[in-house]
Amino acid sequence: MRTPERSVEITQVTEWEDGGTRSIQDSLAAEEPLEIRIGGTPLTVTMRTPGHDLELAAGFLLTEGIIESADQIVEIRRVPGQGDGKSNVVEIDLRDCQFDSRDVRRNFFAASSCGICGKASIEMIRRRGLVQPDRAFRIDPQVLCRLPDTLRSEQAVFSRTGGLHAAGLFDASGQLAALREDIGRHNAVDKIVGWALLHGHLPLSQYVLLVSGRGGFEIAQKALAAGIPVLASVSAPSSLAVKLSRELGLTLVGFLRGSRFVAYSGEFRCMPVSGLSPGARG
Amino acid sequence: MRTPERSVEITQVTEWEDGGTRSIQDSLAAEEPLEIRIGGTPLTVTMRTPGHDLELAAGFLLTEGIIESADQIVEIRRVPGQGDGKSNVVEIDLRDCQFDSRDVRRNFFAASSCGICGKASIEMIRRRGLVQPDRAFRIDPQVLCRLPDTLRSEQAVFSRTGGLHAAGLFDASGQLAALREDIGRHNAVDKIVGWALLHGHLPLSQYVLLVSGRGGFEIAQKALAAGIPVLASVSAPSSLAVKLSRELGLTLVGFLRGSRFVAYSGEFRCMPVSGLSPGARG
Repeated sequence: MRTPERSVEITQVTEWEDGGTRSIQDSLAAEEPLEIRIGGTPLTVTMRTPGHDLELAAGFLLTEGIIESADQIVEIRRVPGQGDGKSNVVEIDLRDCQFDSRDVRRNFFAASSCGICGKASIEMIRRRGLVQPDRAFRIDPQVLCRLPDTLRSEQAVFSRTGGLHAAGLFDASGQLAALREDIGRHNAVDKIVGWALLHGHLPLSQYVLLVSGRGGFEIAQKALAAGIPVLASVSAPSSLAVKLSRELGLTLVGFLRGSRFVAYSGEFRCMPVSGLSPGARG
Repeated sequence: MRTPERSVEITQVTEWEDGGTRSIQDSLAAEEPLEIRIGGTPLTVTMRTPGHDLELAAGFLLTEGIIESADQIVEIRRVPGQGDGKSNVVEIDLRDCQFDSRDVRRNFFAASSCGICGKASIEMIRRRGLVQPDRAFRIDPQVLCRLPDTLRSEQAVFSRTGGLHAAGLFDASGQLAALREDIGRHNAVDKIVGWALLHGHLPLSQYVLLVSGRGGFEIAQKALAAGIPVLASVSAPSSLAVKLSRELGLTLVGFLRGSRFVAYSGEFRCMPVSGLSPGARG
């Protein structure tokens, strides 16, 4: 049931509607494990939608704090597979990196909701080295309100499967710079960041990141790792995402729908300051 | 900004609407890290909504294959905290368990989309020991269609924050047996399974599990670990969830909305068999 693009699979299913059943064809969002290896040592296995795997792996390394720049990547390659030649393993060779596979093996633990993966204790969940994003960046609130429509209209896969999360990178004029989809919210963001990393676009200090899901702690952390000044989502952020954003000066926007949104921190980047109380000026 | 129940936090935010800004109060879904320790050794840190933490920890151990029954839990306790007395650490002592903390430290790796956490290679992502759920269980499709409304009306927190996932356990008559919410989809399911484990209700062979999010591979795996015969969701499943469900005979229902749903496997448990083609009878 594999289609050429691999991000969608077609299958036969049974529909029940108002008492009647019929067999129909349905498109499924593809989900397959991807193993990321550093110098031959397994680092992580993530369930992802195939496509942009090298970007996903590179972005994961940056947003999880294992590397800080593209210079540290000597080579990134897919391990040759059998059959169609596409395996689910990406290998990366690093240099000038404090990464020690024994440390990872010792300190990375399972995480059932991700992003904080690999931190051995609660005190360690916050990535070190996160800095305040560019304070000069501004986006017009009217422009911000148009971004969800642009994202939806550009989502090639979403309309067919209903099962993929999207992350879109926009400049201050509302122009879409990059769009990635994945069955995992974190992966869509890592694919965006990995794209920027591999193309020399970091830090993303002049961009807004819009995610289709919730703005949680780990998404905020990944945005900060890439230097993104504005993180927006169509739904609610979490309490910890708000705390982190306020502490580090990330503009966090939620409920971006129609002509309305809510700013949870860094309002000065996306609202006319005159309309704000002094405390909200960031 | 802490409220007594800890699952919601109140904060002041700035709303932008049609060109005007105003300061409003907003409810946030609480997100805090929970560290699970086995015999004093850190096993995992998960970002979760506080509440039902012991159930979450117990459920995680079962659905991740570390234990198989409640008998293996000698004691489960919260590590005393400072201040309000509630820490974010749960400790569990096990017996008759092949669990070796050194193995966990060696084999558990980060996973950016969870559920497969801790499997050192792709071949290992599927939990061993999963068995086919009860084939005698049936649920009337009309009853199935009523479950999402029941879940929504019972969700105490969701309507206030818009940020929590829910998992509901229903019997064949549509009666709600348990409801748990969490900012993480997997955690809501682990809380349900942990509740059943700690109350002697496993296996859940006469229940339907309804989740508010997507029916992905890891959710299907967790349902199977608890012996649940029917997994339903209001949105789309993933390709790997469908594969696993078909292989192990789990009834997987998606797009459960209004008077319609789609069965991706195990149709015989939730549809009149006469209306099906022979291949769909399971």
